[in-house]
Amino acid sequence: MATERRRATIYDVAQAAGVSKSLVSLVLRDSPSVSAPRRAAVLAAIKELDYRPSQAATALAGGTSQTVGVVIDDYTNAWFVELLRGLQEGLASAGLRIAVSDRTLNTHVESDPLDGFLSTRVEALVLATEPTPAMRFSSQIPVIVVGNRATQVPGADVASSDDRLGTRQAIEHLVSLGHRNIGHIGGGGGSSMLRLAGYQEAMKAAGLDEHVVSVSELTTEDTGYRCTQRLLDEDPDTTAILAANDSMAMGAMAAAQAAGLSVPGDLSIIGYDNSPLSGTHLLHLTTVDSRNHDLGLHVAQQVLSRLADPGRDAQRVLLEPLLIERGTCAAPRRP
Amino acid sequence: MATERRRATIYDVAQAAGVSKSLVSLVLRDSPSVSAPRRAAVLAAIKELDYRPSQAATALAGGTSQTVGVVIDDYTNAWFVELLRGLQEGLASAGLRIAVSDRTLNTHVESDPLDGFLSTRVEALVLATEPTPAMRFSSQIPVIVVGNRATQVPGADVASSDDRLGTRQAIEHLVSLGHRNIGHIGGGGGSSMLRLAGYQEAMKAAGLDEHVVSVSELTTEDTGYRCTQRLLDEDPDTTAILAANDSMAMGAMAAAQAAGLSVPGDLSIIGYDNSPLSGTHLLHLTTVDSRNHDLGLHVAQQVLSRLADPGRDAQRVLLEPLLIERGTCAAPRRP
Repeated sequence: MATERRRATIYDVAQAAGVSKSLVSLVLRDSPSVSAPRRAAVLAAIKELDYRPSQAATALAGGTSQTVGVVIDDYTNAWFVELLRGLQEGLASAGLRIAVSDRTLNTHVESDPLDGFLSTRVEALVLATEPTPAMRFSSQIPVIVVGNRATQVPGADVASSDDRLGTRQAIEHLVSLGHRNIGHIGGGGGSSMLRLAGYQEAMKAAGLDEHVVSVSELTTEDTGYRCTQRLLDEDPDTTAILAANDSMAMGAMAAAQAAGLSVPGDLSIIGYDNSPLSGTHLLHLTTVDSRNHDLGLHVAQQVLSRLADPGRDAQRVLLEPLLIERGTCAAPRRP
Repeated sequence: MATERRRATIYDVAQAAGVSKSLVSLVLRDSPSVSAPRRAAVLAAIKELDYRPSQAATALAGGTSQTVGVVIDDYTNAWFVELLRGLQEGLASAGLRIAVSDRTLNTHVESDPLDGFLSTRVEALVLATEPTPAMRFSSQIPVIVVGNRATQVPGADVASSDDRLGTRQAIEHLVSLGHRNIGHIGGGGGSSMLRLAGYQEAMKAAGLDEHVVSVSELTTEDTGYRCTQRLLDEDPDTTAILAANDSMAMGAMAAAQAAGLSVPGDLSIIGYDNSPLSGTHLLHLTTVDSRNHDLGLHVAQQVLSRLADPGRDAQRVLLEPLLIERGTCAAPRRP
């Protein structure tokens, strides 16, 4: 860890390398028009002086921050981590950085979660959360909405996984194991609505009665716990539960435990998201993979193609989800 | 959600309000020298034009981004969430924003996790992770290290919780319940080393033999699972385990379950961090609270006092941790 006394400027680099400031700029932009020896001299000077281009200066001069802003729901619901990995992979060749904020990170200074990103002039905004009325978008900054949302953003690209198909697959799996009494716990928001619709379609197709307990609040471990308690209370013969996401499924596992039911012996549970939590030894949760890593790669493509052609039509990508079988499903023990 | 055609500038606001650009600046800085009617006119114009000051311009003009950069370990280990809440509370009055990055967010474009923050000219850097050799600090930007770290950052403030005292309290609690055979699972890094030292001190003070299984890798659910398997394998008479953090404790719970041991009937488990995970219904984990929210408030104070007086001596804050008793500890059933 070195400390520096004064920040080197582009002029220092130019002087040390014996070239013009414009030539340093060309090297920084990786221009092919610079000769190999001059490029080497500039790179050596950059290293020697520990020069780092100022994003503030770059942003003001060229209007670009080389950064993509990502707004996520909430740091405690880590479904977005694989999305970020895919986004990293897809943005690497373009040299675009990523900045992440959850919706509440700057509520102490501003009401709009986009403010910080817009004022630092991000290249594009990735909205991995439900749009809210507080969000004021700029027509100059492309928006890519990730996931199925209840509110549309005019002109935005959308990249999502087919949530309706995902829950249909999950119910078909439970039905194939012999379950007839399958409950669903869910919440509000666009994804939850589609996951509910897929559940209802699949139950109807199998000739089964639906049983839904949902909350308007966030889909958390705590709401999953409380929904499951109510569901088991209303119908003690329930043999399987499909949760709207992994956090709620975790709460369902706790409620089963509290009710003296073993998982999957007495109660099968399926989550949704294939979040890092679902893959832990403790949960080992059967879940639906929204393929967030692939989604991140697609979002990166949408960002890059939009930056290359700002006027192109809005795109919509819909990925087919995958059921991930782990340890929380079995044939029903009870009739 | 409004969309705008062209971004309003400070000049547009001045023109619409019939005042000078300097007066708009004064209103933005909340100066008391502006008369109420003129302030009202400026605020109305700001609202009407949807004007948002550019951080890039502010940064270049005044050298300030009004943002504090926070580097965390890893988005999937959510211990930092309460730290952020405290930081928000403490920075609100100063109007300072927060930007967060985990150590790997921009590894696709840069090797140094500080690069992005330094190039956007953050006011201060909060390092809530172990410093690495790749990090190059700037002498112009104050650093506050959160937590006890193996590597020191010269001149930095430090805000931490007394990790050694925390594990001593945990062991004293287990001893008071009647446990004699208490194992410890841990990892690398400064906090882990101090937590290990506290365990060793308390075991020695109680006249008990220590039994430690640790990894050099990250302290995750998976390493917690594997360390516990080895610990139970080496000493099947273990009646209690103290984990270096909540993630490892979660893995310990899974390993106990896999070994057919009930928690806390057959095995008591204590975590560390009082992370959101520990408070879930499924874990309901007894843990040591590092008081991360209070730590966030202290860090905010350190940031503000350092910005007010850049030349002041480095400060060190050490908080006393608290044992949080939940459901994973009981008297030992086995002798």
